[in-house]
Amino acid sequence: MEQKVVDRLTEMVGRLSEISDGEEKSGKCSTILPSVSEIEKIVAIIKNIIFPRFFDHPEAAGAIRSYYIGMNVEQLYSLLSTQIARGLVFGTDECERSVADKAEEIALKFIESLSEIKRLLYTDVEAMVHNDPAVKSSGEVIFCYPMVEAMTHYRVAHKLLTMSVPIIPRIISELAHSKTGIDIHPGAVIGDHFCIDHGTGVVIGETCIIGSHVMLYQGVTLGAKSFTYGDDGVPLNVPRHPIIEDNVTIYSNTSVLGRITIGHDTVIGGNVWQTRSVAPHSLIVQGKAMSTTFMDGAGI
Amino acid sequence: MEQKVVDRLTEMVGRLSEISDGEEKSGKCSTILPSVSEIEKIVAIIKNIIFPRFFDHPEAAGAIRSYYIGMNVEQLYSLLSTQIARGLVFGTDECERSVADKAEEIALKFIESLSEIKRLLYTDVEAMVHNDPAVKSSGEVIFCYPMVEAMTHYRVAHKLLTMSVPIIPRIISELAHSKTGIDIHPGAVIGDHFCIDHGTGVVIGETCIIGSHVMLYQGVTLGAKSFTYGDDGVPLNVPRHPIIEDNVTIYSNTSVLGRITIGHDTVIGGNVWQTRSVAPHSLIVQGKAMSTTFMDGAGI
Amino acid sequence: MEQKVVDRLTEMVGRLSEISDGEEKSGKCSTILPSVSEIEKIVAIIKNIIFPRFFDHPEAAGAIRSYYIGMNVEQLYSLLSTQIARGLVFGTDECERSVADKAEEIALKFIESLSEIKRLLYTDVEAMVHNDPAVKSSGEVIFCYPMVEAMTHYRVAHKLLTMSVPIIPRIISELAHSKTGIDIHPGAVIGDHFCIDHGTGVVIGETCIIGSHVMLYQGVTLGAKSFTYGDDGVPLNVPRHPIIEDNVTIYSNTSVLGRITIGHDTVIGGNVWQTRSVAPHSLIVQGKAMSTTFMDGAGI
Amino acid sequence: MEQKVVDRLTEMVGRLSEISDGEEKSGKCSTILPSVSEIEKIVAIIKNIIFPRFFDHPEAAGAIRSYYIGMNVEQLYSLLSTQIARGLVFGTDECERSVADKAEEIALKFIESLSEIKRLLYTDVEAMVHNDPAVKSSGEVIFCYPMVEAMTHYRVAHKLLTMSVPIIPRIISELAHSKTGIDIHPGAVIGDHFCIDHGTGVVIGETCIIGSHVMLYQGVTLGAKSFTYGDDGVPLNVPRHPIIEDNVTIYSNTSVLGRITIGHDTVIGGNVWQTRSVAPHSLIVQGKAMSTTFMDGAGI
Amino acid sequence: MEQKVVDRLTEMVGRLSEISDGEEKSGKCSTILPSVSEIEKIVAIIKNIIFPRFFDHPEAAGAIRSYYIGMNVEQLYSLLSTQIARGLVFGTDECERSVADKAEEIALKFIESLSEIKRLLYTDVEAMVHNDPAVKSSGEVIFCYPMVEAMTHYRVAHKLLTMSVPIIPRIISELAHSKTGIDIHPGAVIGDHFCIDHGTGVVIGETCIIGSHVMLYQGVTLGAKSFTYGDDGVPLNVPRHPIIEDNVTIYSNTSVLGRITIGHDTVIGGNVWQTRSVAPHSLIVQGKAMSTTFMDGAGI
Amino acid sequence: MEQKVVDRLTEMVGRLSEISDGEEKSGKCSTILPSVSEIEKIVAIIKNIIFPRFFDHPEAAGAIRSYYIGMNVEQLYSLLSTQIARGLVFGTDECERSVADKAEEIALKFIESLSEIKRLLYTDVEAMVHNDPAVKSSGEVIFCYPMVEAMTHYRVAHKLLTMSVPIIPRIISELAHSKTGIDIHPGAVIGDHFCIDHGTGVVIGETCIIGSHVMLYQGVTLGAKSFTYGDDGVPLNVPRHPIIEDNVTIYSNTSVLGRITIGHDTVIGGNVWQTRSVAPHSLIVQGKAMSTTFMDGAGI
Repeated sequence: MEQKVVDRLTEMVGRLSEISDGEEKSGKCSTILPSVSEIEKIVAIIKNIIFPRFFDHPEAAGAIRSYYIGMNVEQLYSLLSTQIARGLVFGTDECERSVADKAEEIALKFIESLSEIKRLLYTDVEAMVHNDPAVKSSGEVIFCYPMVEAMTHYRVAHKLLTMSVPIIPRIISELAHSKTGIDIHPGAVIGDHFCIDHGTGVVIGETCIIGSHVMLYQGVTLGAKSFTYGDDGVPLNVPRHPIIEDNVTIYSNTSVLGRITIGHDTVIGGNVWQTRSVAPHSLIVQGKAMSTTFMDGAGI
Repeated sequence: MEQKVVDRLTEMVGRLSEISDGEEKSGKCSTILPSVSEIEKIVAIIKNIIFPRFFDHPEAAGAIRSYYIGMNVEQLYSLLSTQIARGLVFGTDECERSVADKAEEIALKFIESLSEIKRLLYTDVEAMVHNDPAVKSSGEVIFCYPMVEAMTHYRVAHKLLTMSVPIIPRIISELAHSKTGIDIHPGAVIGDHFCIDHGTGVVIGETCIIGSHVMLYQGVTLGAKSFTYGDDGVPLNVPRHPIIEDNVTIYSNTSVLGRITIGHDTVIGGNVWQTRSVAPHSLIVQGKAMSTTFMDGAGI
Repeated sequence: MEQKVVDRLTEMVGRLSEISDGEEKSGKCSTILPSVSEIEKIVAIIKNIIFPRFFDHPEAAGAIRSYYIGMNVEQLYSLLSTQIARGLVFGTDECERSVADKAEEIALKFIESLSEIKRLLYTDVEAMVHNDPAVKSSGEVIFCYPMVEAMTHYRVAHKLLTMSVPIIPRIISELAHSKTGIDIHPGAVIGDHFCIDHGTGVVIGETCIIGSHVMLYQGVTLGAKSFTYGDDGVPLNVPRHPIIEDNVTIYSNTSVLGRITIGHDTVIGGNVWQTRSVAPHSLIVQGKAMSTTFMDGAGI
Repeated sequence: MEQKVVDRLTEMVGRLSEISDGEEKSGKCSTILPSVSEIEKIVAIIKNIIFPRFFDHPEAAGAIRSYYIGMNVEQLYSLLSTQIARGLVFGTDECERSVADKAEEIALKFIESLSEIKRLLYTDVEAMVHNDPAVKSSGEVIFCYPMVEAMTHYRVAHKLLTMSVPIIPRIISELAHSKTGIDIHPGAVIGDHFCIDHGTGVVIGETCIIGSHVMLYQGVTLGAKSFTYGDDGVPLNVPRHPIIEDNVTIYSNTSVLGRITIGHDTVIGGNVWQTRSVAPHSLIVQGKAMSTTFMDGAGI
Repeated sequence: MEQKVVDRLTEMVGRLSEISDGEEKSGKCSTILPSVSEIEKIVAIIKNIIFPRFFDHPEAAGAIRSYYIGMNVEQLYSLLSTQIARGLVFGTDECERSVADKAEEIALKFIESLSEIKRLLYTDVEAMVHNDPAVKSSGEVIFCYPMVEAMTHYRVAHKLLTMSVPIIPRIISELAHSKTGIDIHPGAVIGDHFCIDHGTGVVIGETCIIGSHVMLYQGVTLGAKSFTYGDDGVPLNVPRHPIIEDNVTIYSNTSVLGRITIGHDTVIGGNVWQTRSVAPHSLIVQGKAMSTTFMDGAGI
Repeated sequence: MEQKVVDRLTEMVGRLSEISDGEEKSGKCSTILPSVSEIEKIVAIIKNIIFPRFFDHPEAAGAIRSYYIGMNVEQLYSLLSTQIARGLVFGTDECERSVADKAEEIALKFIESLSEIKRLLYTDVEAMVHNDPAVKSSGEVIFCYPMVEAMTHYRVAHKLLTMSVPIIPRIISELAHSKTGIDIHPGAVIGDHFCIDHGTGVVIGETCIIGSHVMLYQGVTLGAKSFTYGDDGVPLNVPRHPIIEDNVTIYSNTSVLGRITIGHDTVIGGNVWQTRSVAPHSLIVQGKAMSTTFMDGAGI
């Protein structure tokens, strides 16, 4: 490299090494941040535990189940404790060491909740088997439906959020969003037998409450209609997303917005823009106005 | 680790090792499941064969083409035979060994169809070069258009499905869905010179029949309008998705639903909700009702 | 392998080794193509430089910042020079060697622009902190918002495009599209404090011009309404996407199409289909026609 | 690449693809050969089982021992069955499939012998603790003495040889030879409490019989003195290496050659050339003749 | 897997999970052991620092030296602190946490000694350039002479030993022994300009003291002649290896044994067995007795 | 990290970044050095070409030989050209670019010599089959005899040396030395049917000339007896190692030193120290003086 190039690079290194305004300053502990790749490993291990022969190298799932589950549980405990601790000190002045015991206890409690998470996920799989004529077995759902990925991430992230773990739940849900196009905020509350088909573009907001046996199709938004602002002009984090009761189906690309309630046993068709509450046992479809203009043979 | 922690983990390992209701029981062969990561490798090899200098480490594509193609074809034969065998016994009581010969024959036949798959994919690439003013060469399309990824997966998965390989085709199509947001069921029938631009959110259902020179934009759904249920309340797998004839273009976020026919040389504009058949040479656009209300300067 | 199998495979290798019509012929230099995986590494390095403790193995970010930044800058210079050179000769008859000096100068100039790219990205992060009630810190935005991924790729790709680097910018933007579902053409011009929430399905076309403090939600298309064709029937690459002025917010699944102008300080609601220009300080929402038909208790 | 280079390379590929005289022809099964890297993995797993916290990633050794041992035993069973089967058909006309059951039974029996192998290895470690004043604990021996590597390979290879597994035992012993410079033929019979210090250059021949509590230093050869030839001029594989009785110590660089017996409780000093049997309780040292000539201040 | 196989494997897992007599019990801290692979990384980093362009991926050595050295020094500090802490608690009842500060201080002091270690190693390289007629440059020595590997390990291990780090130094020296066949105990004291040619089989004992400008050839043992035993029958760790003064050369396969002194400026020929001290300026060669018997044409 | 630690590390980085006396200065090209790991890959590829099913992942060796050989030959050409170019400029002021053509021609010529190298290696394998009663097939020799590793490296390194490639041959031979303990200088000239058994500690000097059908055992040194010094006190690189004629066998730990000739059809026993020429058809064994003193029952 010519000296001139070295000089120009060196100058840029100097400027890029400055701490810019938007950057977090390191606290007194120069805390290590949570690691996205470690969190990916954590979710992969949880999938190994819950769906033992599906996502690991199949040979590794082995024949003697308890050894396999045991190894995964131990590794989960170790990796999860570390990331929870990093989450607990994220953006604070605390040091990782001071929260280590708390993090380990949370990790342990989380592991103790895994059999319930597993039970819920199998209700989701079962629901999909009943809802999609193209599917032949629960194994096919586990292998081929992005919903399994999305719901595993969601149910794990939601549990961690209820145990007050900061930042980690959101990283987990964003990992699923990236892979599946399904964006479920870990704060949402979702019942059993939950289904999403195709799923790309689905958004489920932070304060949603969703009952049992609910089914969504691709592009459904369960969002906020508008924000409430505090005196300082910052939007407030208040309940602002819909409540969906049991046995509701919402077809593709429909938006349900605001703190409204969709009554149980309701069906909402596709491409609907719904901003008002709906009584139980309703059927909502697009009005005629949505019908299209027909111009035989016309140029565009 | 303290003994108390060990005890709690041990208890959970016990509970998580139980076979839950939703889980597939292992058959008498304790068959190894298909491997998603091996299937990813298989598609990568196929891409190396069809687009030799684009997706491999470029140095590996080498100068003497037949060695490179030869190595890839051999490896494909070996990996594909194994995964097809696993697919054939998936969810059955059969053992992998008993289907090995059949799997190898299918793999071989599939490889013999690769030159036709290659021909079709190059028509897709060619069509995109003609349709997008932003594109400069077929090389740019191969590198930068998610459609190439989606259609390679689709054409491979579709071929395997027509050879009655279970589960593997759906895993292949879901891999493309995850990467591109384009969800094409391997059961769909799609002609040559097929184009998708941007593509996120596109859904093409299992019983779609699509002609030649068809172009779709992002968010287009070619879906079912409703399901037909059997006596047992389970939805039936009958033709329920649209037929799209030759030379049809469908713009972004439009849904075409049900077993309807879109006649050839038709254009459907964006955001249309189409549930009835359309004659050839039609132009469909959103009706006025779709126009928006204009409120200068009003607060939301 | 039986001889018969070898023969069938050998025949296919022969046929698949033929250069098909759609394939690019190798130029006299048998030029090596750009490498997608190397370009992924390049963007990862840029993220390490701009968000030092977030996306690398956290331990690697180290304590002595200038060493870390320095190593990354050097590696960036080397990898980027190579890929730019490959881009410059892509589809031409030129040889890589003859553009090496030019490529190195471009890489150097690009690195010299990194502090400006960094500044812009931190304004994007800052804007998101102000716009989403669910967010607590800029660190959370950097970790959990796909917009950061999408905008880093966009701002890098756009810069390279303005320096006339072929093909590489589009590969970079497609990498972000695959991960986030957000598809921003590197040719678009986007101001500071730009926000996208959720983002799946967002499409921003090649000739868009977007001001400062603009916010988009998932599914927004800033697209072309129609194409202008040349005498040869090929669509022309002319300005055909909207101009969005400062302080505009566009809600989910809205399409803004054609070379129209959305005046500053305007809000466009969700699911709107906008094809005409709008004055500043406007509020656009769906007309009543969009309201849905309500059928209590009816079957679908 | 210029055509001329392609031509020259192509010609060489043709010539190098010919089967030369010395090469094994493939049998009718085109059997896959044993894999040196898989065999390395097998020995690594055995070391994990026998010395659980020493040679694996230490974190992996975990807290709940039976899960860790269990996973390793299962993996060992699977990998070892495969390699044994490949060994059984090596150089024969048999097919791997036909020996699969036999190979699995051998692997199982081998695993059932592992606790005895473990017991023996810990006697070797214990002996070294007693013999070397520089050592402080058995842990230090396990970590730092090449003897542990060499003896683990030997005891495993020897067991497999006694179960009539071809080729694999020799590959295992050569792996240790490469790492430690200690070359023990798997056919040798070696008792408990066996020690080798430093070890580089030690050679122990195929028909050696070694008692308990024997200690060797670097460079010791227990070899053949001469060969017995058959009528065809090929050397015969008859007992031709020494018998070393219990409690014998042999110092560095000494050679003990031929089918002689070194009686128990004997010490042989360094640099000795021993070709005759020795009674028990002997002390053998170099004769005076070995003393050196002393030339003060002389040039060489 | 058949149940019978599972049962047999399960039984063996049980037996192999028992703690055998020879195994170290875990202390109350269930301390993680030192990691051989991390220690390998540590030495590799040190080689990067001392011989910057030789052993890393050459491209990584970069153009701007201080960034490269800086990154390596930081990583060294982090990895070394961890391993030293594990060494400090090895075989004790202490917990890693309680020695963390001490370990970091030792790591820091070690790093501060690196420039002296570097200086010494370059004297060794320089000496080899002067001593071997086959060598052309110091670069050739660094690349091709196993002595550089052996001496780097030794000088690092020796320094750590003088700072009372347990176990780690021996692991470091054994790594070099395995690669080079040269076994230098970290307790030995070795001056500058030290050379070993070829080196296989060289052994240098724990209490050796070696001056400057000493040169050894392959197979040289600087060992103990006999052990001194304590009342309990255990050999005592007393000075028992030779003192080699300045400017001594010892040719191949010679053994120098016991606490004797080889005076300065002495040459000892090959295959000598030396157990008595030697005055300065001596020349020692094999006596006549070593001459061989000549039997023309005789059979062996 | 505390500031104090940062300061101490920073100071050391400064000192370690200085170019020390012994270090090579970078030439004007800041040439990249040869890469040991790339050279390891090169030899591995050559082994794949010469022993196709033995050292690669066995599955990769495939069924259609010419594709496999072809891919390896192409990769060899590319990697070898690069390393030869780096070797050619090593320690000079030349730039890699200026020797690229020359390096490619040498690589090509080397590849054209591979069939002769292959022929020679199979004679070595064949000779070992005839010489060792423990061996059953040539396949066993290829798998288990370190000689194959050592001789492949030697014959490759020797060929490159005869084509005047600097430094690379020595790196290749040192790689074999590290793995096998056999140290053959690439300058030595060695005929066909050459055998080494066990091999640890064998040294073959730069100016050795060895005929056909020669067999060596472990620890044999074919070395220099003394050096000839130039006027400047530097040892001269003149013929100084023995000439070994055809059909000679030399047993373990024997040293043959100086420019002497061992006549054809000679056998030299073990532990011999030979410094004078020997007539053909000789048998050399240790004189009686080498016999040991026998002290029944004495303490050491």
